[in-house]
Amino acid sequence: MIKVGIVGGTGYTGVELLRLLSQHPEVELAAITSRKEAGMPVADMYPSLRGRVALSFCDPADAALSSCDVVFFATPHGVAMAQARELLAAGVRVIDLAADFRLKDTAEFERWYAMPHSCPDLLAEAVYGLPEVNRDAIRKARLIGLPGCYPTSVQLGLLPLLEPVAGDLIDVDTLIADCKSGVSGAGRKAEVHTLLAEASDNFKAYGVSGHRHLPEIVQGLGAIAGRPVRLAFTPHLVPMIRGIHSTLYARIRPGAGDTDFQALYERRYADEPFVDVMPAGSTPETRSVRASNMVRIAVHRPQGGDLLVILVVEDNLVKGASGQGVQVMNLMLGLPETLGLTQLPVLP
Amino acid sequence: MIKVGIVGGTGYTGVELLRLLSQHPEVELAAITSRKEAGMPVADMYPSLRGRVALSFCDPADAALSSCDVVFFATPHGVAMAQARELLAAGVRVIDLAADFRLKDTAEFERWYAMPHSCPDLLAEAVYGLPEVNRDAIRKARLIGLPGCYPTSVQLGLLPLLEPVAGDLIDVDTLIADCKSGVSGAGRKAEVHTLLAEASDNFKAYGVSGHRHLPEIVQGLGAIAGRPVRLAFTPHLVPMIRGIHSTLYARIRPGAGDTDFQALYERRYADEPFVDVMPAGSTPETRSVRASNMVRIAVHRPQGGDLLVILVVEDNLVKGASGQGVQVMNLMLGLPETLGLTQLPVLP
Amino acid sequence: MIKVGIVGGTGYTGVELLRLLSQHPEVELAAITSRKEAGMPVADMYPSLRGRVALSFCDPADAALSSCDVVFFATPHGVAMAQARELLAAGVRVIDLAADFRLKDTAEFERWYAMPHSCPDLLAEAVYGLPEVNRDAIRKARLIGLPGCYPTSVQLGLLPLLEPVAGDLIDVDTLIADCKSGVSGAGRKAEVHTLLAEASDNFKAYGVSGHRHLPEIVQGLGAIAGRPVRLAFTPHLVPMIRGIHSTLYARIRPGAGDTDFQALYERRYADEPFVDVMPAGSTPETRSVRASNMVRIAVHRPQGGDLLVILVVEDNLVKGASGQGVQVMNLMLGLPETLGLTQLPVLP
Amino acid sequence: MIKVGIVGGTGYTGVELLRLLSQHPEVELAAITSRKEAGMPVADMYPSLRGRVALSFCDPADAALSSCDVVFFATPHGVAMAQARELLAAGVRVIDLAADFRLKDTAEFERWYAMPHSCPDLLAEAVYGLPEVNRDAIRKARLIGLPGCYPTSVQLGLLPLLEPVAGDLIDVDTLIADCKSGVSGAGRKAEVHTLLAEASDNFKAYGVSGHRHLPEIVQGLGAIAGRPVRLAFTPHLVPMIRGIHSTLYARIRPGAGDTDFQALYERRYADEPFVDVMPAGSTPETRSVRASNMVRIAVHRPQGGDLLVILVVEDNLVKGASGQGVQVMNLMLGLPETLGLTQLPVLP
Repeated sequence: MIKVGIVGGTGYTGVELLRLLSQHPEVELAAITSRKEAGMPVADMYPSLRGRVALSFCDPADAALSSCDVVFFATPHGVAMAQARELLAAGVRVIDLAADFRLKDTAEFERWYAMPHSCPDLLAEAVYGLPEVNRDAIRKARLIGLPGCYPTSVQLGLLPLLEPVAGDLIDVDTLIADCKSGVSGAGRKAEVHTLLAEASDNFKAYGVSGHRHLPEIVQGLGAIAGRPVRLAFTPHLVPMIRGIHSTLYARIRPGAGDTDFQALYERRYADEPFVDVMPAGSTPETRSVRASNMVRIAVHRPQGGDLLVILVVEDNLVKGASGQGVQVMNLMLGLPETLGLTQLPVLP
Repeated sequence: MIKVGIVGGTGYTGVELLRLLSQHPEVELAAITSRKEAGMPVADMYPSLRGRVALSFCDPADAALSSCDVVFFATPHGVAMAQARELLAAGVRVIDLAADFRLKDTAEFERWYAMPHSCPDLLAEAVYGLPEVNRDAIRKARLIGLPGCYPTSVQLGLLPLLEPVAGDLIDVDTLIADCKSGVSGAGRKAEVHTLLAEASDNFKAYGVSGHRHLPEIVQGLGAIAGRPVRLAFTPHLVPMIRGIHSTLYARIRPGAGDTDFQALYERRYADEPFVDVMPAGSTPETRSVRASNMVRIAVHRPQGGDLLVILVVEDNLVKGASGQGVQVMNLMLGLPETLGLTQLPVLP
Repeated sequence: MIKVGIVGGTGYTGVELLRLLSQHPEVELAAITSRKEAGMPVADMYPSLRGRVALSFCDPADAALSSCDVVFFATPHGVAMAQARELLAAGVRVIDLAADFRLKDTAEFERWYAMPHSCPDLLAEAVYGLPEVNRDAIRKARLIGLPGCYPTSVQLGLLPLLEPVAGDLIDVDTLIADCKSGVSGAGRKAEVHTLLAEASDNFKAYGVSGHRHLPEIVQGLGAIAGRPVRLAFTPHLVPMIRGIHSTLYARIRPGAGDTDFQALYERRYADEPFVDVMPAGSTPETRSVRASNMVRIAVHRPQGGDLLVILVVEDNLVKGASGQGVQVMNLMLGLPETLGLTQLPVLP
Repeated sequence: MIKVGIVGGTGYTGVELLRLLSQHPEVELAAITSRKEAGMPVADMYPSLRGRVALSFCDPADAALSSCDVVFFATPHGVAMAQARELLAAGVRVIDLAADFRLKDTAEFERWYAMPHSCPDLLAEAVYGLPEVNRDAIRKARLIGLPGCYPTSVQLGLLPLLEPVAGDLIDVDTLIADCKSGVSGAGRKAEVHTLLAEASDNFKAYGVSGHRHLPEIVQGLGAIAGRPVRLAFTPHLVPMIRGIHSTLYARIRPGAGDTDFQALYERRYADEPFVDVMPAGSTPETRSVRASNMVRIAVHRPQGGDLLVILVVEDNLVKGASGQGVQVMNLMLGLPETLGLTQLPVLP
């Protein structure tokens, strides 16, 4: 059995890790930390785990994290980079669900997250944990910066269009990602704007002038394309709990009009266990992946014009966070990639 | 024009007062206070008021409240009783939407609200602002303790059964009020349990062992009945914004089985502008009173047995709080009771 | 592997059976019928099953149901009783999720369901599929009438109080079940009153004068108590997808005031795999059992009075329907009772 | 008093007309028709109108529509064009909320609505009822084709950029309208995909390959710009009742980079009573216009690049339908444009 620790388990990605890992056939949950809730049984905070998860939150100082095989950080930005070095030195693999190891450029990191980066050497070593792009590197990695929820869906949606092998298909300077997220994406923080009485029966954009996921998306797409891309990113808040729907717009380049984009996507993702390219004409629903690690994608070219409209749905807490974390863990440890991740979506 | 001040206008009952009062033909909004948001235009916090309410929040110290005709307190418990005496001395009428002037027994108040009552003499003078019960007293009052949202619906639902004039119809020792409230009833406070991601697609009871509205309901029903009553009160949280649905259970006394309860209710409320007794067999919906001051009631006697099931719907922010406040203000000032309160419910 | 057929798989209990059975380690899905959708791949209607359920709906006439080990009926009332005899004759075990085999009194059945009962002999043989009450009989049964969603929660909530072994604890003539259900309980039928624009941000009671689950509840409680009981049942519609919350009221009999009701419940359910008695003072949430077969119960005695308030939550599509069906199937086939039913609830 | 008739009043735009017109100081509701519900009091279907609207639905054949001053058609496409001629001949002004008089090109109409157009001459005469564009023509019109809900928000959002007077500011060939609508936009029809259990906690696009509002938007923008425009339109379904949020993307032309777009919008809409240009940096919420005739717009230029992102919110049933109908009626009759339309949005 693999011993797993979770640092900062009181938030939504923490409880989702608990849900997935406690049902994973090869995992033993060794410790879950919370400075604030130390001593409280996990199942007191999350009654859904009653009778199934016997752990209590423990103080980070008391957690035997260094004897774990893998430690997940489900913490605010800045925590993982303060603790990763010691764990890595003890031979522990580290997977950070926050942003500490996503942006390769420390200046970018410091600009968007308003804190200095404390370990640029580890950042250089860290692998960006998007299996559909970096599977081999993930297998060999000690330290993972797990993608953000929006970046996962946008990158998977545009990937087949941007890879050099596909040819010069689209204009990489006018990409648009109009994204919509359920409220769990904002985390389990007491804030007014995500109260049910504020956010339900309501819809709005936010972060239009600049959202932290923008540089991550641009970095990721640039790495895929092998050249710089420009993208506008508009996130919106949807009155639902889970789910991200990304509506992506890309202009077809003059010479690429004859491409069979449906076939391109189907071919690219034929062997991916968690990416489902839907039949032409489909409009995927977020609930079709609710509580599962699947991503579903549909490719549209309205009226046969020069604009592609790509629709992508994921569960922001699973493929957008904790499920992807488990997928990455499986890869790092040489386990079957889908182990513990095959539960069907919950619909309705 | 009547000059009106609002103390503590940043919460939901505050903004609802603003919505109603700014459309009231006889009211001039003179001041709205918020220590924390002093200086901020009201319409910055509530864009729904843009172009229509020009006021800014002001510091309580700077508000010319003593020159108002009426001051509403839409504040936490304990604020109104600290400021009422001075305002009353200046000839201002005071309407408290919190609990300071609801419970006549200061010991009860102190037990349920965990603070001493600072002005028992004013409490003795204060009138409980439920027009359907206390209309005449309200007309002459200087100081009003406005009923809570649950208590309004429960009292209006049981009133016709309990008034001595109706005879000895029901067992007053086994009353049950199973009540369901939208989340706005919890106020505009940053709390985890009322986040959309926690409270939507979910249902639960709370305060089962004792809720602050219980002593208020029991006091009110006892006053109506002229004798003590016993009632069990179970509040529940509904994943919706506005609305209270009270399901009330009362046992018919052996001798009262022939009563025409439908007729009793219709007769009792025939002249009430804000209470609608629906036809026999109806099941009122909360949305049928959304954003309006109406209460709708249906009277059921399943299978002709000895149990009455009374269904009551109200908008907790209107008839359950701010709308009732305006209704009471109209009465205190000799205005037509329905002035500014005739807007139709918003459906769907 | 056990061969399982589903008759009428297009509704919510049908798709929930698919979700559970396709993940059940001992089950092979052999056929799913739908006269209307014959030929359509199941995953076209329910994209959540894409890549995991390869079946298409087939015409009932073409389904090799008689070669199945078990057939579930997820059909409207009246279908199962027309087809059960032939299947039973072929040695197939039959589990009906509708009402054909619930009410033992055919006159009652005909009164509430407005159709004659076509096979009273089978009705007499049929076992009421509530494992916590009838486990041994279920093990030996060929034909199961599965409990309704409300009746499951009400019976599990009152069971420990009513069993003769517990003594004469409560007044069995004044029971009240105030129940609240998510909208999936109304099924996947195109109807105006369950549209999102009608049912969301709204709350109402329905069926107050008489709901079909009332005679089933009364029959079940009477069987448990060994004597007639009287109960008032008020169902309500909650703006959420899944979940039932039953708030149950029972009067403690004069001599029973010293009973430790918390201990009574804990003892009674100590060995039940799907019933969780929560700690004293708890208020269970429907989401704590979302998408799982668990029921959670809390026992309250407000202010130490003579009224018990029992709170019960279940997922109406799982323990209230399809999950209970799988639990019953496991029992009938001698499999471990929890097989295929151990997935954790999805929260948030 | 103005006598008003409504044809087809059982849908959401019908009941919204009733809500607005019954509170309009100059209107007398003369008749409301519904073949199917003839004889039923309007308030039986819509309890929100109890005590306030005494009308019953009447059969179209019995309605004295020709003696009305104005008749609204809140009917399916195709009804208004069959009845308009007779009403116009009787001197009645006609406002159609459906699509019969929107598309000027009958071939376009027939292609998108799959029915022949029965009165091209009236179509030629009909005025497109968007006051911010056609105010003078509306004042003189006998027959109005009222804009669709999406087209209203998209046209108001792009109008200042496209009017020739503004200069050649944006690329008119690459416009994108990514729009999100509440479910009431689908009407009060019994359909599976808009059930609460299907559409809540869910998000999806629809009509991506072609939606009926696309030709209307393109026609309207082309008329505003005085030249053809090209636009991609992606509608999405939001799990809320009311509200449309349009996120509009427009590329700034090379020579127009110095334009002060915020000032352009503020200037253009300075005198419009129902269009509110919010301060720079704002992200308007749909609830900020809930149940009101207001539109709120925010203008963004992320990172000072060459892409404008315009955010527009409206209530699809008010400014997107019935409220705009009343606004147009006021103009046609020479009444103050805002009469009966000044109610504040309902928030929360």
